[in-house]
Amino acid sequence: MSGDIKELVENKKLRGKIISAEEAANIIEPGMTLGCSGFTPSGYPKVVPSALAKRAEAEGSIPVNIWTGASTGPELDGELARTGCIKRRYPYQTNENIRKGINSGAVQFADIHLSHCAQNIRYGFYGKIDIAIIEGLRITDEGGIIVTSSVGNSNAFVEMAEKVIVEINTVQPQGLDGIHDIYSPENPPNRKPIPIVNVHDRIGSTYIPCPPEKIAAIVRSDVKDSQRPLAPADEISSKMASNLIDFLSVEAETGRLPKKLLPLQSGVGNIANAVLEGLAEWPADGLTVYTEVIQDSVFELLDSGKISFASSTALTPSPDGAAKYYPRIGDFKDRIVLRPQEISNNPEVIRRLGLIAMNTAVEVDIYGHVNSTLAGGTKMLNGIGGSGDFARNAYLTVFLCPSTSAGGKISKVVPFCSHIDHTEHDVDIIVTEHGIADLRGLSPRERSNEIIEKCAHPDYKELLRDYKRRAEAGKGHEPHMLYEAFTWHERLRLLGTMMK
Amino acid sequence: MSGDIKELVENKKLRGKIISAEEAANIIEPGMTLGCSGFTPSGYPKVVPSALAKRAEAEGSIPVNIWTGASTGPELDGELARTGCIKRRYPYQTNENIRKGINSGAVQFADIHLSHCAQNIRYGFYGKIDIAIIEGLRITDEGGIIVTSSVGNSNAFVEMAEKVIVEINTVQPQGLDGIHDIYSPENPPNRKPIPIVNVHDRIGSTYIPCPPEKIAAIVRSDVKDSQRPLAPADEISSKMASNLIDFLSVEAETGRLPKKLLPLQSGVGNIANAVLEGLAEWPADGLTVYTEVIQDSVFELLDSGKISFASSTALTPSPDGAAKYYPRIGDFKDRIVLRPQEISNNPEVIRRLGLIAMNTAVEVDIYGHVNSTLAGGTKMLNGIGGSGDFARNAYLTVFLCPSTSAGGKISKVVPFCSHIDHTEHDVDIIVTEHGIADLRGLSPRERSNEIIEKCAHPDYKELLRDYKRRAEAGKGHEPHMLYEAFTWHERLRLLGTMMK
Repeated sequence: MSGDIKELVENKKLRGKIISAEEAANIIEPGMTLGCSGFTPSGYPKVVPSALAKRAEAEGSIPVNIWTGASTGPELDGELARTGCIKRRYPYQTNENIRKGINSGAVQFADIHLSHCAQNIRYGFYGKIDIAIIEGLRITDEGGIIVTSSVGNSNAFVEMAEKVIVEINTVQPQGLDGIHDIYSPENPPNRKPIPIVNVHDRIGSTYIPCPPEKIAAIVRSDVKDSQRPLAPADEISSKMASNLIDFLSVEAETGRLPKKLLPLQSGVGNIANAVLEGLAEWPADGLTVYTEVIQDSVFELLDSGKISFASSTALTPSPDGAAKYYPRIGDFKDRIVLRPQEISNNPEVIRRLGLIAMNTAVEVDIYGHVNSTLAGGTKMLNGIGGSGDFARNAYLTVFLCPSTSAGGKISKVVPFCSHIDHTEHDVDIIVTEHGIADLRGLSPRERSNEIIEKCAHPDYKELLRDYKRRAEAGKGHEPHMLYEAFTWHERLRLLGTMMK
Repeated sequence: MSGDIKELVENKKLRGKIISAEEAANIIEPGMTLGCSGFTPSGYPKVVPSALAKRAEAEGSIPVNIWTGASTGPELDGELARTGCIKRRYPYQTNENIRKGINSGAVQFADIHLSHCAQNIRYGFYGKIDIAIIEGLRITDEGGIIVTSSVGNSNAFVEMAEKVIVEINTVQPQGLDGIHDIYSPENPPNRKPIPIVNVHDRIGSTYIPCPPEKIAAIVRSDVKDSQRPLAPADEISSKMASNLIDFLSVEAETGRLPKKLLPLQSGVGNIANAVLEGLAEWPADGLTVYTEVIQDSVFELLDSGKISFASSTALTPSPDGAAKYYPRIGDFKDRIVLRPQEISNNPEVIRRLGLIAMNTAVEVDIYGHVNSTLAGGTKMLNGIGGSGDFARNAYLTVFLCPSTSAGGKISKVVPFCSHIDHTEHDVDIIVTEHGIADLRGLSPRERSNEIIEKCAHPDYKELLRDYKRRAEAGKGHEPHMLYEAFTWHERLRLLGTMMK
């Protein structure tokens, strides 16, 4: 089975390292740290982790630390969590089994800004990486690894790992070859400016350089990325998208934004996809995207010419999107670049290009603090991901959420966020299906007025106004009654609703 | 009286604009927005604001919006707040009267990252600036303004204001001429990399360019900066400083930091000063500083050669420090540069140079969230200042605070910060007089253990352990009991102590 990937391993000496997934999994020892490719269920290793999970089923749990780009797919996160192999996990995940482990305390999860992970590894802050496991399209004569549908942290893992295992994936589209732009910043004090001044600038190589002697094994994989379907935009998402687009129109009309806008960043998932879909009707062509992931909507707008260029660290199409666009992915190479996540999410580039950052919130409070990660202040959902990288450095920082969830039992606008990932200092605009709160330059008293009146659900407005009124009677820059701050979450926990 | 500043106004046509402070104050109309120089009580306008306050005493309050670099001195913030003239104030303050106004709701204060203020003004997010009031040393033939002991946001104010009033200060040391490096980034999409790769790089001009026709008035001032004395380091500050330096020594020994360290950033005030004083014994020479303010300790270490270069946006010596160093400030021009605060605090430069960011906290919680601004979650102290600019982008982010205050009645380590300015995602190291918590790569459960055991005051340790234990019984990634989260603050409010 491994024989027919030889032509994808150009370096002839490396061909002797082609082994089975089971043999490769045997290189892994308990306690090791594995740096895996993958960002969203794209470009992650599949057959070696699956083989490791099988070994664990036979031998008992093989505890390892798993570092990736972000979330991955079921063959990696799912299988290793199911077999109890994940001891420590950085920096983001969306897997149900890992989430259980995180919330029970069995999996140690550090919720790290996605742009910080690679440099903190290079700085030696997290200890050494034993093995990098990287999904590749092919290996060049010099040992360079051409990666697949994501870059993530793979460049840093290859640089810092003692050994590298490459999964050559034969079912990823070969048209991806040449789409990547690999650039690793030096460590301070020798770091130079990252020379990106336009979304489309290419500054590195199309492969990850890797000394051939570092490659410990090469394994054939013919397992596809486990793409997730996207729900069609529902009424609430569409309303949020149209509220945001109305706001952007005013900004463009008044000259606070160019007609072509500025590069767009949009989080992962249905709401983000709906916002970009909504831009199909934007009056100017030539929009650009500088973001983490390219979902279906971006492919569509690239196809229509509405978007002229998109930069990201991963392609994250739905199965339908992949079926439609992957066969001709080679045609997009002049309009798409995939970068390491430390570049796609880099504060230097984000601030220079002046991004419009649009991310979803779990809850927001009346002063504009945002919870992106923890339900009820304690329970991990996915992680902060890149939201902080973008929110903190963008031209305009937007957070979107529906005004309620759970059929109205949860107000997403609360007196005090039960967990804070983004502070009032970083949030410009909040969008719900009811409207837009424009917080720029406002004091907390003005912010709470704007958020309650423009964004809260009508059913919760009077309760929020009542909190604001009574808190303000007690004075303070940001009036609160700390003894009442979390009573909304307590009502939900005890009575199943925030409604009084 | 105004006659003898003529030689400091090189442009002869501008000499006709020399008028009295009272005449200049008459240009100001109610409702105007004034962009004032000044960052700490250094380089702020003095005689025009004082004259405006006198006018307000005679005519009744003249409400204006005051934007500055950061805090200023009594002639500006103090006088205008006392006479009820400050309607809106950006982006930082330390004045007692303004603080009262902010906390009563009379002054609308938006607590903005210091590096964001100038660009948000250029983006048009805060509306127009009517008049910039800038303290200058002299005006060049082309109308360029040489500023004095700080740069702050003055370049942006001059660029964006309709009119400019210059206070030529005759008692500021003329040796400051040439110390400044004025560089204004362009707005996106035309922004270029900021070409600073070393702390000492000069990238701009020594003056703020200003079209002569924009200058509406030139006024003589002979009022000194109102410098504040620095308390000598007390035992607790010294212990914090030595804990931090011990930690940095280990980092340098293990190679996670160079022997000369990386550029140091240190907040304003006594603790920050003590930390830098403590570095007098550091084994290597040639340390560098990239920060907001240069206090006495930096002057001393520049003098001794321990520090080879310091970049900041303000000189903030104590009166003793000014008496010692200002007469020979010209000799420091090859070792000090003063930059606009959007450059001294710029995320691009901070991340590239790899700063060690050391700032003080009002309180920290067991998971490493930090409150920098609000007492009891509501009452504004000073503002976030540059702490977020640095914390979010540094190589190593350190927050320091004593473990208790108010004679032990307040624990600075609490279950849940009553206000969050810096999140767990951004905080690497916490220092108290009891020890160092190294949070890099830890999960919340591990972080709380580290913070409680290493940093909390012994009197509060068992109470914190008890909270942690009971919260963890309820599971969750970041275990909390929201109904108990603020009971420590409630005990303080009702009983005058957090102790149970």
